[in-house]
Amino acid sequence: MVLDLPQICALLQVPLPTAEPAQAPLCIDGVNTLQLAGGGDLCLAETSEQADAVKTSGAGAVVVPEDFPVLIGPVLIRSSEPRRGFFRVAEAFVPASEIQGVDARAVIDPTAILGQDVAIGACAVVGAGVRVGDRCIIGPGCYLGPDVVLGMDSVIEANVTIHRGSVLGRRCLIHSGTVIGGDGFGFSWDGNRHRKIPQLGCVVIEDDVEIGSNCCVDRATLGETRIRCGAKIDNLVQIAHNSQIGRHVILVSQAGVAGSSRIGDGAVIAGQVAISDHVSVGPGARVGGQSGVTKDIPAGLSVFGTPARPIRDTLRELAALAQLPGLLKRINRQASELVELGERLERLEQERSGSCR
Amino acid sequence: MVLDLPQICALLQVPLPTAEPAQAPLCIDGVNTLQLAGGGDLCLAETSEQADAVKTSGAGAVVVPEDFPVLIGPVLIRSSEPRRGFFRVAEAFVPASEIQGVDARAVIDPTAILGQDVAIGACAVVGAGVRVGDRCIIGPGCYLGPDVVLGMDSVIEANVTIHRGSVLGRRCLIHSGTVIGGDGFGFSWDGNRHRKIPQLGCVVIEDDVEIGSNCCVDRATLGETRIRCGAKIDNLVQIAHNSQIGRHVILVSQAGVAGSSRIGDGAVIAGQVAISDHVSVGPGARVGGQSGVTKDIPAGLSVFGTPARPIRDTLRELAALAQLPGLLKRINRQASELVELGERLERLEQERSGSCR
Amino acid sequence: MVLDLPQICALLQVPLPTAEPAQAPLCIDGVNTLQLAGGGDLCLAETSEQADAVKTSGAGAVVVPEDFPVLIGPVLIRSSEPRRGFFRVAEAFVPASEIQGVDARAVIDPTAILGQDVAIGACAVVGAGVRVGDRCIIGPGCYLGPDVVLGMDSVIEANVTIHRGSVLGRRCLIHSGTVIGGDGFGFSWDGNRHRKIPQLGCVVIEDDVEIGSNCCVDRATLGETRIRCGAKIDNLVQIAHNSQIGRHVILVSQAGVAGSSRIGDGAVIAGQVAISDHVSVGPGARVGGQSGVTKDIPAGLSVFGTPARPIRDTLRELAALAQLPGLLKRINRQASELVELGERLERLEQERSGSCR
Repeated sequence: MVLDLPQICALLQVPLPTAEPAQAPLCIDGVNTLQLAGGGDLCLAETSEQADAVKTSGAGAVVVPEDFPVLIGPVLIRSSEPRRGFFRVAEAFVPASEIQGVDARAVIDPTAILGQDVAIGACAVVGAGVRVGDRCIIGPGCYLGPDVVLGMDSVIEANVTIHRGSVLGRRCLIHSGTVIGGDGFGFSWDGNRHRKIPQLGCVVIEDDVEIGSNCCVDRATLGETRIRCGAKIDNLVQIAHNSQIGRHVILVSQAGVAGSSRIGDGAVIAGQVAISDHVSVGPGARVGGQSGVTKDIPAGLSVFGTPARPIRDTLRELAALAQLPGLLKRINRQASELVELGERLERLEQERSGSCR
Repeated sequence: MVLDLPQICALLQVPLPTAEPAQAPLCIDGVNTLQLAGGGDLCLAETSEQADAVKTSGAGAVVVPEDFPVLIGPVLIRSSEPRRGFFRVAEAFVPASEIQGVDARAVIDPTAILGQDVAIGACAVVGAGVRVGDRCIIGPGCYLGPDVVLGMDSVIEANVTIHRGSVLGRRCLIHSGTVIGGDGFGFSWDGNRHRKIPQLGCVVIEDDVEIGSNCCVDRATLGETRIRCGAKIDNLVQIAHNSQIGRHVILVSQAGVAGSSRIGDGAVIAGQVAISDHVSVGPGARVGGQSGVTKDIPAGLSVFGTPARPIRDTLRELAALAQLPGLLKRINRQASELVELGERLERLEQERSGSCR
Repeated sequence: MVLDLPQICALLQVPLPTAEPAQAPLCIDGVNTLQLAGGGDLCLAETSEQADAVKTSGAGAVVVPEDFPVLIGPVLIRSSEPRRGFFRVAEAFVPASEIQGVDARAVIDPTAILGQDVAIGACAVVGAGVRVGDRCIIGPGCYLGPDVVLGMDSVIEANVTIHRGSVLGRRCLIHSGTVIGGDGFGFSWDGNRHRKIPQLGCVVIEDDVEIGSNCCVDRATLGETRIRCGAKIDNLVQIAHNSQIGRHVILVSQAGVAGSSRIGDGAVIAGQVAISDHVSVGPGARVGGQSGVTKDIPAGLSVFGTPARPIRDTLRELAALAQLPGLLKRINRQASELVELGERLERLEQERSGSCR
C-alpha cells in the first residue's frame, strides 16, 4: 500500500498543505515513530513540544495539531484531531492476512462447514461439525474441536485451541496460544481424593470480542461462560467457568476472573487484578492494578487494594500508613508527656492536700 | 447418550417419583442450568429458594432435596444428596473423546512405543523413545519430546508440549497450551553476562494429576520437579524447577511456585499467590488469594497477605489500618489536649510557687 | 556422553584425586542430586554439612570444596570453586537437540531463506520471506510469520508463535508456547465501542536473550518493542507494546511490563511484579516480588510494595503496621488517661479558684 499526499489528506479530511509547493511528490508506505521513521513513513506529533523531534525525524510527513510551529523538515499535515486522524490513515497500512485460502496441509473434518472465502493455515486441525463463517481466518497450528462455531469475519491467530462446542460471534479476534473451552476447575473432596466435577457447559463469545495471547477461557460446569459484545481482553488473562464478562469490558494483562463472577458492562479491570468467585463487579466500575476483589462492587465505583475498597479509602489509608512509623514515635512521646503531667499533677495534689490539713 | 427416568433414578439411587403418573416418558440427553435448560435436560436445585426458578425452567427433570416444595413444572427427583447425585448422573453425559485412533497425519517416531487403544490427533509429534500407556489420548498439535513416558489412561489435550524425559503417571489430564519440562530459570552472573546453568533434571508427575491450560512446569536443574498423586492445578500456574507439589494439593489459577519450594500434602494455594524459592508450605496449610509466601508455613495454618502471615493477624492489621486515618486525627487532638493540660498545670504550679513565696 | 575421572578433573581444572588409588575406573554419564544419583552420576556438595548425604549417596563422584571431610563413599573431587566447576562439567551432558535437519513434514514457504545446518521440526510452519540464521533450531509446531528474522544459533522450542516482522538476534532461546509479536493492547473509545488502534510496529530481540514458556511479547503500536542483549525472562511474563527491556535484565515468572515502559540495564524484576505503563525503572534497580511499580524508579534503588517505594520504607511501614492493633489500645488508654488528668486538674483549679475567693 502506497499513499500520496492528496490521498492521505483525504483520509484525514484536511486540505492539502500549501506552504511547501516545490516538493517532490510524497510516497507514504508505512507509519512509524518519529525516531525510527524513514522517508516513506507517516508519523504523529501530538504537541508542539515535539517540534525538535519532528525537525530531526527522517519521516516523510507528520500529522500535527493545527497550532504546531512551522518548521523545516518533513511535510506537516495539520489536523484538528491529529491522533484520531493519524490512526485512521494507519489502518490503511494493516497488512493483508498471510493466510490465504485453505492450505492443503490443514486437516479439516469432512463434516465441517466452511463459509465463503475462508482461509485456514497449514497444520490447523478443524473437527467434526465445526461451522466457520464467511471470510474467517484460522491460523496455522490451531485446533478447533467438534461443533465449534465461528461467526463471520473472525480471525483466529496461529496455535489457538478452541474446544468442543464453543461459539464465537462475528469479527472476533483471538490471539495466539489462547485456549477457549478448557475444563472449568471444579472438584469435590470425597474423603480420599478430589473427584472431578464434569464440566459440561460451554463458552459463548459474542461479536467484536478481542482476546489476547495465551489467555484461558474455561467452559462452564453447566450452562455457559459468556463474554459479551465488544469486550477487549489483554494477554495471559484467566476467565474461569461460568463467569460473565459484560459488553465493552476491558480486562488488562494477567487479570483473573474466578468462577461464576460477573463483570458489568463497560467495567475496566486493570492488570494482575484478581476477582474472587461469585462476585459481581457493577457496570462502569474500575478496578485498580493488582487489586483483589472479594465483594460485590457497585456500578461506577473505582476500587483499589487487596481486599479492594473505594480507591479514596485505600489511598487515604496508604497515606496514613506512610506516617505510621513517625506516629509510633509521637505516641511514645505522648506517653512520656502523660507520665510527666501525671507526676506534676500528683505533686500539686499532695501539696494541696498537705496545705488542707 | 439418552437416559430415561428409571435409569436416572437408578444412578441417583432413589425410587421413581410417583406423584406425576400420567407424564410422557422422559428422555434426558444432557445437563444444564435451570435458566438455559430445554426439555431434554436434567437440572439441579439445591435449595427450596430455587422453587420459582424450577417452576419456570424448561428442564425435563430437576434433582431436588427431599424437602423441596411440590410444584407444577419439570419432573422433580428427590434425593438426600442432590448435588452429589446430580453430578454422578452428569458424568454419563461426558462426551467420548473426539480423538479416535492414531491419525495418519500425526508424526510418530518409529522408536516410540504405543500401548493398546491409544489415540493421537493430527499434527501431534511424538519423539524418539516415547512410551505411551494403554488408552492414552494425545490431542492434535501436541509435542512429546524424546523419552517422555505417559502412564495408562492419561489425556493430553491439544497443543500441549511435554519435553524430553518427563514422566507422567496414570489417569493424568493435561490441558491445552501447557508446557511440561521447559528449562528451569537458572543463571549465574560471570561478571559480563548471565551464564546459563544447564537444566539437566526432569519432571515427574504422579497418578491422577490434573493440570490446567497454559501452565508451565519446569524441569529440575538436577534431580526432579515432582507433582504428587491427585494434585489439581488450575490455569496459568507456574511450577518452577525442583519444586515439589504434595498429594492432593490445590493450586488455583495464576499462582506461582518458585524454585525448590515444597507444598505439603493437601495444602490449598489460592489464585495469584506467589511462593518464594526454597520455602516449605506445610501439609494442609491454606494460603489466601494474592498472598506472597516468603517463609515456611507450618502445617494446617491459614495465611494471607504479602508477606503472608497468619490470616487472623493480617485481618486484624487490615482492620486497624482502616481506622488509621481517624487515628491520626485523634493523635493530633490528644497532642493539643496535652499542650492545654500542660499549660493549665503550669499556671497552677506558678500560682502555687507564687503563693509559697 | 561418558567422561572418565581424568576428563572430569581436566574440565574442573583440578589435579586427579590420589587418595583412593585402587578404585575401578569411573564412568560418568550424567549429573544428579545426591539423593537420586546412581553410580554413573556426578554430584555437587557445596558445604561440609552435606557430608552425611555424600556418604550415603549412590553417586559415582562428588565435586566438593577443598576443606570437605575425608570419607568412605563416592570419589571426592576437591575444587576451590565446586559449584562453578560442577556446572562446567554439567554442560558436557546437555543433550544434542532432538530436532535434526529439516523435517519433511515442516511447511516452509519457498521464499524463506534457511542458513546452513538449520533444523526444523515436523508441523512447523515457516512463512514467506522468513530468514533463518545458520544452525538455528525451530521446534515442531512453531509458526513463524512473514519476514521473521532469526539470528544464527537461535533455538525456538516447540509450539512457539513468532508473528510477522519480528527480528531475533543470535543465540536466542525461546521456550515453548511463547508468543512474540502479537498485537499490542490498544483501543480508543469512540462513544459506542472500543475501536482498535492498528498495531503496526514490530518486536526486536537482541542477541543472547532467553524467554521462558508461555510468555507474551507484543509488537509495538508504532516503532518497536525491544529486548536488549542478554536479558533473561522467565515463564508467563507479559511484555507489552513499545516497552524496552534493558541489557541483562532479569524478569522473573508472571511479571508484567505495561505499554511503553522501560527497564534499565541490569535491573532485576521479581515474580508477579507489575510495571505500569510509561514508567522507567532505572539501571540496576531491583523490584521485590508482587510489587506494583507506578512511578519511575531511580537507578540502583531497591523497591517493594504496591505502590512500590524504597524497600526500607515499605518494610518499616509493614513493621509499624504489625504494631498498629496494639497501638489502637494504647491510644484508647491514653485518651482515658487524658480525661482523668483533665478531671484531676479541674478539681485542683476549682479548689484554687475557691481558695482565691
